[in-house]
Amino acid sequence: MPSPDVGADRRVTFRLLAPNAHDVTLSGEFMQGEKPFTKGEDAVWSVSVGPLEPEIYHYNFTIDGVRTIDPGNPEVKTGSTPSTISSILVVRGDAPAFYDAQNVPHGQIRTHWYPSKALNNIRRLTVYTPPGYDRDLQARYPVVYLFHGANADENAWYRLGRVNLILDNLLAAGKAKPFIVVMPFGYGVEKDLVADVIPYVESQYRTVADREHRAIVGLSMGGGQALSMGLNHLDLFSYVGGFSSGLGRASEWPQTYASLIKHPDAANKQLRLVWVGCGKEDGAFAASKGFSSFLDEHHVAHTFRETSGAHTWMVWRRYMNELSPLLFR
Amino acid sequence: MPSPDVGADRRVTFRLLAPNAHDVTLSGEFMQGEKPFTKGEDAVWSVSVGPLEPEIYHYNFTIDGVRTIDPGNPEVKTGSTPSTISSILVVRGDAPAFYDAQNVPHGQIRTHWYPSKALNNIRRLTVYTPPGYDRDLQARYPVVYLFHGANADENAWYRLGRVNLILDNLLAAGKAKPFIVVMPFGYGVEKDLVADVIPYVESQYRTVADREHRAIVGLSMGGGQALSMGLNHLDLFSYVGGFSSGLGRASEWPQTYASLIKHPDAANKQLRLVWVGCGKEDGAFAASKGFSSFLDEHHVAHTFRETSGAHTWMVWRRYMNELSPLLFR
Repeated sequence: MPSPDVGADRRVTFRLLAPNAHDVTLSGEFMQGEKPFTKGEDAVWSVSVGPLEPEIYHYNFTIDGVRTIDPGNPEVKTGSTPSTISSILVVRGDAPAFYDAQNVPHGQIRTHWYPSKALNNIRRLTVYTPPGYDRDLQARYPVVYLFHGANADENAWYRLGRVNLILDNLLAAGKAKPFIVVMPFGYGVEKDLVADVIPYVESQYRTVADREHRAIVGLSMGGGQALSMGLNHLDLFSYVGGFSSGLGRASEWPQTYASLIKHPDAANKQLRLVWVGCGKEDGAFAASKGFSSFLDEHHVAHTFRETSGAHTWMVWRRYMNELSPLLFR
Repeated sequence: MPSPDVGADRRVTFRLLAPNAHDVTLSGEFMQGEKPFTKGEDAVWSVSVGPLEPEIYHYNFTIDGVRTIDPGNPEVKTGSTPSTISSILVVRGDAPAFYDAQNVPHGQIRTHWYPSKALNNIRRLTVYTPPGYDRDLQARYPVVYLFHGANADENAWYRLGRVNLILDNLLAAGKAKPFIVVMPFGYGVEKDLVADVIPYVESQYRTVADREHRAIVGLSMGGGQALSMGLNHLDLFSYVGGFSSGLGRASEWPQTYASLIKHPDAANKQLRLVWVGCGKEDGAFAASKGFSSFLDEHHVAHTFRETSGAHTWMVWRRYMNELSPLLFR
């Protein structure tokens, strides 16, 4: 009774053995709304969707009103709050995707437990090192500080975003420069980053510790954090990116970005890239578009990428694949 | 509506908002069998257990006959098959436990993607490096190859077993020697270990690459793998441990361990430790006890640890805490 069951035509059937259930529905990133399961004579409920485009999708079952996972699928998306729990559906195409593990040199993912003085506790930090990092002990690397969204955690960018595999593939194709990626736990990171995370990373890794070799990028809540921290710390960062960003109220932007808009010429000289992206089906789209206009009004040079897509990892994986080749050139 | 809700008295209440459910039950490692929830007037179902001993427990909800997780708890146990999916309950005591993150120097967890020639695919490997590994680049370390059980994966020993925090705490207390821990994906590891994993690890890490500085340890399915591979490769390993081991049929042991029992005196000279442990409430207990008798009959020196406990991570964390100080002394 496999679930999810992906056919050769990329139609997908979900199944659930539930003799005593009264109502089972499916929701997922591959469709709008909910779709009811049908109960078969063998008490196996099933529903089919597709054919679907090759992608990684998140989905849930709702069983007698309770939203939960597909209990037949070992791939589970987790985070820092229960609202994020979903099952993961991988639909493969004929060729490997840009986020698939391929037969290329691979970097590593490292998990650190470090003491945060600013937050007075032990926090976890996920770090990507590019292929060959442990070979050439003289080489030093630029660093991207990369933030997750609300409800997620410091593992989201590699487990769901596959940032390591995206970068391994770009590097093998000669499309990006090698860099280290540092993924902190996002809640509280505004206090933690400058006081603890950056000094810790620079003590542990062979980084190039100057603003020309630091980027700050994030998605959703983390996109807002990256833009506000990055654009207020031109002394620390020269590349700043926000994906589907949580930007707060537009009325507060003149205050939040006061130092930036006061000296836009100086900022434009220092900033190598300001990259703001959002999908048009994303609830955060209007804010991102408005923020781009705000930067335009104040003559702050930036890229505004308006794409298809909603508030999903499908979009953020593509953005990371698109942004990474622009860094540290 | 928190769930699980751990009181100061360590009684635990589980809750579920489910207006349309007919029957909700709880199962978990803190009790035998199932316990029914009671539906309150607000459509919130609840059930309480305890007071419980401070521990990390796994549990499930069964909603109208479907076994699933607690949808209110972000901590989810996953693995390589759906049968392993559970929610995680942490009950803290007054003092930190031996597996808690404490204010001590911390090692790292590293995830590698490596090409397995023997299995012709890209596999993942989890590695623990002790605190200070990246500081003293002259130091070389012994290695423990550590295997998970059925339905689990290469992350189980750190996410559920907390092997890194156990070792960090032992090292801070001066109770263990520093060593690297290598955690491969267990399915197929018999083909993969000698041909791919060991050479890969020795090319990537500063190991002491001889039998005196290698241990092989596992639990359940991985306990059987560790004992059969370790006791048949005295050229590679001098410390061998099996926790709650899956040992196959006793009638096959004379064949499986033929080289060992043919020359027990040579084996006893070479083996620094053979450690076989099992809890008395574990279905695998009789096999472990029988295997200890088999080793006795053939005069193979070993330690047989008979403890309380069932087939759970509670037992395996304690065994790792007990075994580690005995390694590489």
